[in-house]
Amino acid sequence: MKMGTVIRTIPRAGATIIASLREHGVATVHEAMGRTGLMKPWMRPIYPGARIAGSAITVLAHPGDNWMLHVAVEVCQPGDVLVVAVSSGCTDGYFGELLATSLVSRGVCGLVIDAGCRDVADLTRMKFPVWSRAVSAKGTIKATVGCVNIPVVCAGASVTPGDVVVADDDGVVIVPIDQAASVASASDQRAVREAAKRQRLAAGELNLDIEKMRERLASAGLVYYESLDEARQNEEKERS
Amino acid sequence: MKMGTVIRTIPRAGATIIASLREHGVATVHEAMGRTGLMKPWMRPIYPGARIAGSAITVLAHPGDNWMLHVAVEVCQPGDVLVVAVSSGCTDGYFGELLATSLVSRGVCGLVIDAGCRDVADLTRMKFPVWSRAVSAKGTIKATVGCVNIPVVCAGASVTPGDVVVADDDGVVIVPIDQAASVASASDQRAVREAAKRQRLAAGELNLDIEKMRERLASAGLVYYESLDEARQNEEKERS
Amino acid sequence: MKMGTVIRTIPRAGATIIASLREHGVATVHEAMGRTGLMKPWMRPIYPGARIAGSAITVLAHPGDNWMLHVAVEVCQPGDVLVVAVSSGCTDGYFGELLATSLVSRGVCGLVIDAGCRDVADLTRMKFPVWSRAVSAKGTIKATVGCVNIPVVCAGASVTPGDVVVADDDGVVIVPIDQAASVASASDQRAVREAAKRQRLAAGELNLDIEKMRERLASAGLVYYESLDEARQNEEKERS
Amino acid sequence: MKMGTVIRTIPRAGATIIASLREHGVATVHEAMGRTGLMKPWMRPIYPGARIAGSAITVLAHPGDNWMLHVAVEVCQPGDVLVVAVSSGCTDGYFGELLATSLVSRGVCGLVIDAGCRDVADLTRMKFPVWSRAVSAKGTIKATVGCVNIPVVCAGASVTPGDVVVADDDGVVIVPIDQAASVASASDQRAVREAAKRQRLAAGELNLDIEKMRERLASAGLVYYESLDEARQNEEKERS
Amino acid sequence: MKMGTVIRTIPRAGATIIASLREHGVATVHEAMGRTGLMKPWMRPIYPGARIAGSAITVLAHPGDNWMLHVAVEVCQPGDVLVVAVSSGCTDGYFGELLATSLVSRGVCGLVIDAGCRDVADLTRMKFPVWSRAVSAKGTIKATVGCVNIPVVCAGASVTPGDVVVADDDGVVIVPIDQAASVASASDQRAVREAAKRQRLAAGELNLDIEKMRERLASAGLVYYESLDEARQNEEKERS
Amino acid sequence: MKMGTVIRTIPRAGATIIASLREHGVATVHEAMGRTGLMKPWMRPIYPGARIAGSAITVLAHPGDNWMLHVAVEVCQPGDVLVVAVSSGCTDGYFGELLATSLVSRGVCGLVIDAGCRDVADLTRMKFPVWSRAVSAKGTIKATVGCVNIPVVCAGASVTPGDVVVADDDGVVIVPIDQAASVASASDQRAVREAAKRQRLAAGELNLDIEKMRERLASAGLVYYESLDEARQNEEKERS
Repeated sequence: MKMGTVIRTIPRAGATIIASLREHGVATVHEAMGRTGLMKPWMRPIYPGARIAGSAITVLAHPGDNWMLHVAVEVCQPGDVLVVAVSSGCTDGYFGELLATSLVSRGVCGLVIDAGCRDVADLTRMKFPVWSRAVSAKGTIKATVGCVNIPVVCAGASVTPGDVVVADDDGVVIVPIDQAASVASASDQRAVREAAKRQRLAAGELNLDIEKMRERLASAGLVYYESLDEARQNEEKERS
Repeated sequence: MKMGTVIRTIPRAGATIIASLREHGVATVHEAMGRTGLMKPWMRPIYPGARIAGSAITVLAHPGDNWMLHVAVEVCQPGDVLVVAVSSGCTDGYFGELLATSLVSRGVCGLVIDAGCRDVADLTRMKFPVWSRAVSAKGTIKATVGCVNIPVVCAGASVTPGDVVVADDDGVVIVPIDQAASVASASDQRAVREAAKRQRLAAGELNLDIEKMRERLASAGLVYYESLDEARQNEEKERS
Repeated sequence: MKMGTVIRTIPRAGATIIASLREHGVATVHEAMGRTGLMKPWMRPIYPGARIAGSAITVLAHPGDNWMLHVAVEVCQPGDVLVVAVSSGCTDGYFGELLATSLVSRGVCGLVIDAGCRDVADLTRMKFPVWSRAVSAKGTIKATVGCVNIPVVCAGASVTPGDVVVADDDGVVIVPIDQAASVASASDQRAVREAAKRQRLAAGELNLDIEKMRERLASAGLVYYESLDEARQNEEKERS
Repeated sequence: MKMGTVIRTIPRAGATIIASLREHGVATVHEAMGRTGLMKPWMRPIYPGARIAGSAITVLAHPGDNWMLHVAVEVCQPGDVLVVAVSSGCTDGYFGELLATSLVSRGVCGLVIDAGCRDVADLTRMKFPVWSRAVSAKGTIKATVGCVNIPVVCAGASVTPGDVVVADDDGVVIVPIDQAASVASASDQRAVREAAKRQRLAAGELNLDIEKMRERLASAGLVYYESLDEARQNEEKERS
Repeated sequence: MKMGTVIRTIPRAGATIIASLREHGVATVHEAMGRTGLMKPWMRPIYPGARIAGSAITVLAHPGDNWMLHVAVEVCQPGDVLVVAVSSGCTDGYFGELLATSLVSRGVCGLVIDAGCRDVADLTRMKFPVWSRAVSAKGTIKATVGCVNIPVVCAGASVTPGDVVVADDDGVVIVPIDQAASVASASDQRAVREAAKRQRLAAGELNLDIEKMRERLASAGLVYYESLDEARQNEEKERS
Repeated sequence: MKMGTVIRTIPRAGATIIASLREHGVATVHEAMGRTGLMKPWMRPIYPGARIAGSAITVLAHPGDNWMLHVAVEVCQPGDVLVVAVSSGCTDGYFGELLATSLVSRGVCGLVIDAGCRDVADLTRMKFPVWSRAVSAKGTIKATVGCVNIPVVCAGASVTPGDVVVADDDGVVIVPIDQAASVASASDQRAVREAAKRQRLAAGELNLDIEKMRERLASAGLVYYESLDEARQNEEKERS
């Protein structure tokens, strides 16, 4: 897409589906999606304990230039999440409490940025969650146009405007809008299965037994020894 | 400067100016300075929420050797901040709660070190703030002399003894002593402007309008489309 | 050792010794061991404030494969610490709250893993401490056998099953089982010396004087000047 | 796309267009595309001097598992470039001279892999170029299915099967197949312009004058001083 | 082992075995060892094309201190390889052409160091190969004793004095002395198998067929589609 | 210094002194300066074998913006070296063969840039040496003024315009102009001493003996054992 493109309207998943994905959290949703859609682990929350889900408003910005974030504010709606990709690696502080104030006034529930943010003490106080690759006070300019609401790659994940962004202490996962319903439902099923297993594990059962792994392990070559010495003797015997 | 040089006395900025810079915090001060003086974003606080400002006592130490920190203690005065540069990259734990006890007894308000520190649970309990590039229990030796109170480069920033160090959750910025007054005053002005803008943003006004960016954006090539499909059709038309 | 080896029984240090090492914490124990046994500083706790010590159950796993963690659960006893090395660099989330539930049911007091973990909000709530190189929701498979309770290298440290693992906010240190008693006793002595010194430092005495460093510093070439100007003039004089 | 998906046939750009893009090289093509499509700079050639262009056969593999590379060989045609993305960060040696022998027998002209490769001395001798994030002898397994010829994100760039991959000492750029012709033509134009400018620069003309930047620089605030002292005096005057 | 320990004599593998391991190179030896013993991929040769094997003389040095390298020279014999571990991360230039001159005079065939080296232009001219984590001119001191010829961890690998070090453009692998003969023989077998396979691959046969992978792939869920569109239609059908 | 400042004239060291520093190279000069002035080891040459020295023309540029490099060309003279610092971390390709053509036409002998460069195949052919932190084709803009010929921090080193830059395969060192003569002379002396020592080492003498280190080592606690077993027995005896 040509630099300077802004798309005003995006599709959005239903509120119930988004709420369900938020409830399940990143790890479960990522599993339910077949282990796809995850951003790189360098994306960390600025404070622990936040968990959000919302529709992605995407931004493509340039190094050291946050102009497009200001443009993006106008197209945000309540429940959206701003997702900012940068055209090359940068840790500058693209985002602070003034932009957060603006986003809060429009009901945006968080920011995901593959660059830096600042005013993190204020953002923590405001309970406005941010997932970023860095914290940096370094200011940015407003000189070059990028794009708003085009498909972007952010922290290694493809994001199409309107995809559901789920973020918590484990990171950030992107659910394509056309899979949102099926992933929510698969997450429900996974959660039910896990609840059942959790009880058995808490009671002392081994996952080896619950999942009947012992035979598969043996045929993959697993051998038990009583002690390290016994294993070493066996190894030496085999070598000679 | 030759290794082994210790300077006993440094100039210091006035207490009111230092207090003002502390009040404004790193992001505002860095902006008010024309976006200079910032340390690299790898410098992180060992616990969230601290904010300090004080006169820089500088140390140049060697890899794995904290001898000069012990020398530096003697020349510290209440309100100072110890700033430690290392002659090559090192993450060892140069600093722990014994050195902190010593600094507290002299009224020093924090440490900035481009290396590691340890005893972070104790330092957190003591509320002695440290900005460092690493946390590491690795001990250091006392074998080679470095310098105290000479100009150093710490985490990418030039620091002259007596410069004002401002540090908070956003990082660390160095204000040259001869600019301290004008930067404090520029910070005041910036804070006033930001307070006014904050209210307007909270009320839902767009920064695009407050700063009258729309015309400049259009002349830089920004084009709005209703949907991604519309933008794609336009792009294909242009290509053909 | 051949892949697929599991050792059921390991030696364990006495509970009193382990408790003493836990009490002293990583920095003191590392010093008392002659500054050896420390893991690399990239190993960080998922939440601040935890401090544990226990007998090492070691695991050698493969990239993106947590099968051996499930195997290891069975050989854990109350007070053990799971130590997971990976055969090549990986940040995937090998460990989450289900595995933690299983370990808690066996009395395991923590996990040290040179890879990623997930469900960190849940683990924080459960107060199950983890030291890892990353947090990542990325799921792992169960396809290739590794080893349990063989000697491994984890985050740069050699770990033999049964060694005492001590971990806190400063990182992770490994105490070889045959040194555990002597290290605990050396830690005691060190703590007593430090308590005495702490009082003197808090009262304003300088470590320069307590440790009688001044003469050694002078013979190493340390020279005091009143001001930077004086030092510069001296340096120019020497050059000419 | 579901794991386990293999697409046999992909579209390919015309040979003349591909040859033209190869001729221009990565930097020119990236500029001609409006500065998009570039992989991250961690992708480096295993030996200097190679320059290739070809149609992307894409692979999505898992950490430490090169099974899908073997699957991909069969769908390659002369002139193709294999592009391998990994579902999470890994530096293992997915690729060596046996796989290269297989690719050479099918006319594949190079490999781009966001992971490690090995046998680099052999590959250099064979003149089979590879761009990778690491060199590592670490072997991989064949246990989990991924995908072949689905859209992937590789080293931060979106790659759709059939896109033109251009790679040289400056890195790797991806040209979407539907833009290949227009980008080749824009590259031609750019090369002509640069040749003209190169002559003028070699003759001593300044780009400041060729591009008439002086006025724009002045209005952006550029001020010339004869010496550092003059600039400092001016700055002090302004502050007071 | 206590700091300050130097062991004068080490066991050494037979010259024929060492020569055989050198001939096979790192990737083959690492595979023949069951994929163990590899150093981390950050260890890179200072010039391409070197390949060595020899008995490990181990050194444990401290950050910024190369004293123990000078001590180690004396215990080296022709055919040995110096392996230097550092007690914490350091990139300083521990080694240059003077030390290389000394090692050459004793017949040492290379250096492996988990730190920096310098004089790399001279070393390249002398054809003295070094594998290091960095190149740096930064000088080191001679102040603190470490150890020579004790077991160390170097770049993530356990090295016992006398182990066979094999290093080439793919990295560095350590063969425990008691496995050297069996690994050399397993490497021979592997090389024979690979030569046979190489011919078949060069003739256009697919590894899928040579290794009969198709059935295993199908049962692991691999599905072939003619085109991306066909796969997408199938996926949508399944979701609905 | 205010952004937008350009200084036209700088002091320069004498040609003989510069030639002498070039001759000695980075490692020797860095030692002769008392081990100061070195840039961080992430600064690497784009091709091996170059060695330059010249007067520093300094540039302070902004992330992703190479405007000031174009401004700097005009103030360069034959024998100068362009040194580019960036106000925050950036790997973009600020410099390519067109700018190199311009610099060559003015007799500039090389570039040192704490960011990326591109066209490295062309630059290698032109024999125009560059030391950079990255190679990247990513283009830059011309939007924001920085400074030319003010003191900067580049890759961790302070550089004042006119300082002598020495760069080779070992990295980059900065010699302050007022120390250039004395450092050249100290380098001469060091080279003479090293030549003498080189002969003795080549003849098999040990540095331990040449520098009479044995006594100092013994008093620092160095103890020799014949074998690892002997050392272990001794250690156990001491513990009990």
